[in-house]
Amino acid sequence: MPVNLNPPVAAQLLPVAGVLLGIAQANIKRENRKDLLVIQLCDGARVAGVFTKNRFCAAPVIVARAHLEHDEGIRALVVNTGNANAGTGEQGLQDARATCAALAGLLGCKATQILPFSTGVIMEILPVAKIAAGLPAAVTNRAADNWFDAAEAIMTTDIVAKAISKQLVIDGATVTITGIAKGSGMIHPNMATMLGYIATDAGIAPPLLQALVREAANRSFNCITVDGDTSTNDALMLMATGKSALPEVTSSDSAAYNALLEAITEVAIYLAQAIVRDGEGATKFITVRVEGGRDEDECKKIGYAIAHSPLVKTAFFASDPNLGRILAAIGYAGVDDLNVDVLQLYLDDVLVAENGGRAASYNEADGQRVMQQSDITIRVVLNRGAVNATLWTCDFSYDYVKINASYRS
Amino acid sequence: MPVNLNPPVAAQLLPVAGVLLGIAQANIKRENRKDLLVIQLCDGARVAGVFTKNRFCAAPVIVARAHLEHDEGIRALVVNTGNANAGTGEQGLQDARATCAALAGLLGCKATQILPFSTGVIMEILPVAKIAAGLPAAVTNRAADNWFDAAEAIMTTDIVAKAISKQLVIDGATVTITGIAKGSGMIHPNMATMLGYIATDAGIAPPLLQALVREAANRSFNCITVDGDTSTNDALMLMATGKSALPEVTSSDSAAYNALLEAITEVAIYLAQAIVRDGEGATKFITVRVEGGRDEDECKKIGYAIAHSPLVKTAFFASDPNLGRILAAIGYAGVDDLNVDVLQLYLDDVLVAENGGRAASYNEADGQRVMQQSDITIRVVLNRGAVNATLWTCDFSYDYVKINASYRS
Repeated sequence: MPVNLNPPVAAQLLPVAGVLLGIAQANIKRENRKDLLVIQLCDGARVAGVFTKNRFCAAPVIVARAHLEHDEGIRALVVNTGNANAGTGEQGLQDARATCAALAGLLGCKATQILPFSTGVIMEILPVAKIAAGLPAAVTNRAADNWFDAAEAIMTTDIVAKAISKQLVIDGATVTITGIAKGSGMIHPNMATMLGYIATDAGIAPPLLQALVREAANRSFNCITVDGDTSTNDALMLMATGKSALPEVTSSDSAAYNALLEAITEVAIYLAQAIVRDGEGATKFITVRVEGGRDEDECKKIGYAIAHSPLVKTAFFASDPNLGRILAAIGYAGVDDLNVDVLQLYLDDVLVAENGGRAASYNEADGQRVMQQSDITIRVVLNRGAVNATLWTCDFSYDYVKINASYRS
Repeated sequence: MPVNLNPPVAAQLLPVAGVLLGIAQANIKRENRKDLLVIQLCDGARVAGVFTKNRFCAAPVIVARAHLEHDEGIRALVVNTGNANAGTGEQGLQDARATCAALAGLLGCKATQILPFSTGVIMEILPVAKIAAGLPAAVTNRAADNWFDAAEAIMTTDIVAKAISKQLVIDGATVTITGIAKGSGMIHPNMATMLGYIATDAGIAPPLLQALVREAANRSFNCITVDGDTSTNDALMLMATGKSALPEVTSSDSAAYNALLEAITEVAIYLAQAIVRDGEGATKFITVRVEGGRDEDECKKIGYAIAHSPLVKTAFFASDPNLGRILAAIGYAGVDDLNVDVLQLYLDDVLVAENGGRAASYNEADGQRVMQQSDITIRVVLNRGAVNATLWTCDFSYDYVKINASYRS
């Protein structure tokens, strides 16, 4: 079950002026399941995004990138589950473009004004005919208050839908931000498709919007994934409709930009953490914080070595303070000149190790107490610099194997 | 159960002239279990080895390295299970030295002529008193034909003991090689302690011996682990007693050196593969072969990305040809300029993917047939160079989680 994560309450998800969402059941992989989402944007809305760096990036990623660069004004996004349209070669590109064309025909815009997204099984041909047949129902279903259904429509192995809204007042104008996300394969998050869609009614000039989504992703979704290594389909999109009373933000030096950056980053962090909390088979949410490093690279190397170690993750699943496994992971993280004798390892408030070994003050009962919690922080203090980094991960259980050994069947 | 791996037959393990092995039950972690091994070497025997590169390397590794460098002639090796003496700080170093001193007292040599090795739980203090109390029995037990018991004495979570002998004739002289190893944590082999001890009655000059063990390790144990990232305690030791009729080998250009290198590498490959076949919870033995790369680095990056992917490994556990997961792993391996449209992916003899997607000739029944096997080769042909690399790994099952969630209890 998800770790300290409640489903969103539909009534608390706020419409974003200029955004309509339509959902349909297109029977892409299974019957009787919401598997198709259309997000329509008003004229003048701006879209920016960050995508996977996987060399085998999926066809919809290639097409969405091209359409964003082409920049004739994006009018809609279309998301299907049940098939990733990845590892599908030239056919996959044609299928992604055909999906855009089908929706463009319904909305009266160009195919290049549509961004396509897919998530699901890799290396199977996208059933375009089913998607095209489902799109009219999605278009008919359009509404501003459909965010909850939209969050459900993009789920794959997710147990809980992920969505949040936030309102703030900037320069006297109320600004709304609503975001949804999906993703739950967490032991190597770089393999699980993560999709995130955040919309705001603020107006943000295009180059700033791109900078903003990149910064927000670096502080959220990129803290639950390996440095730049992501799945074939990962994407985080930020949509700004400009329908609020706030004048268009055109400078990154402005208070308005920074307020938006903070608020959108908060939304992104909530969604990214929700993906970890709903990690496949997760029973514990683990924050890995590495402090006092010389640079971010070494902090992240150590953080990821801990966060990816199956031995560490299974120990947390067992609530077993077998904490030497964390030391071993720190040691093989690849920081060649690391002096392990000067670092400290904490589990929440408990000092576990220092001077190259177990801390004199440490006793197993304290470790056991923290291990029983469902939210735990591993803190490594390197004592060699002033840079910190925080990552989020989950433990590793029988159910992870079960889910991933049976995902296709 | 181990994958296509039978226990060694005691009678087939050949004594190596100049090597005596003694085993004892020292009750280090559990009662009634062989957990202490002494390997005594004749005067004039030479020892070389390769050790973990983990920054948190264990106390016995530090002490063994120092004693090897000191080079007063190594007279014995002592190996305990049940406790890794890692993450134990200054106390750990004292304990490793005390173990050497205790054995040196019994054998009438200096403590610096002993090499200590430990494997087991990390960050707990080594019970030196128990080891010291057990050593006399191990010394009394010494015999040349104790290799089978020695292989059993170093097991931790291993299900099957790992040992092999090989004889060959070089320049008319019969040379014997016998090796043992332990290790079984395989999903991230860099975390599981691997210990290997190979002895030969050939005489090999010290600098050559070091070169030989390094080369043999690179072609065996280092193909089941991450580039240079190893556990806190990993070690592979090569002992050459010089008791055979073959004159001491002093040049790496000689036919004798190359014959020895090949034979010792064969022994090392058998032992390394045996560790994978006995991987924790393993049900399948997987060879990952990457061909046609520009250099070894990129071949290994891609090989390890595949071999470490939990999604790939769980698919093999499920015998599910969900082979897009392999493409995704290739894509995120970190080879930035990789052209995925020109590579081919094979599962044994079955062409799975080419031209960026599923091969036209591929059908699921063929993939399913190969997936049912217990020995499977994943072959990636990059078509961009002439370099190949081969790695060995295993699948990832419920039992891996079970073993590692309960290892301490």
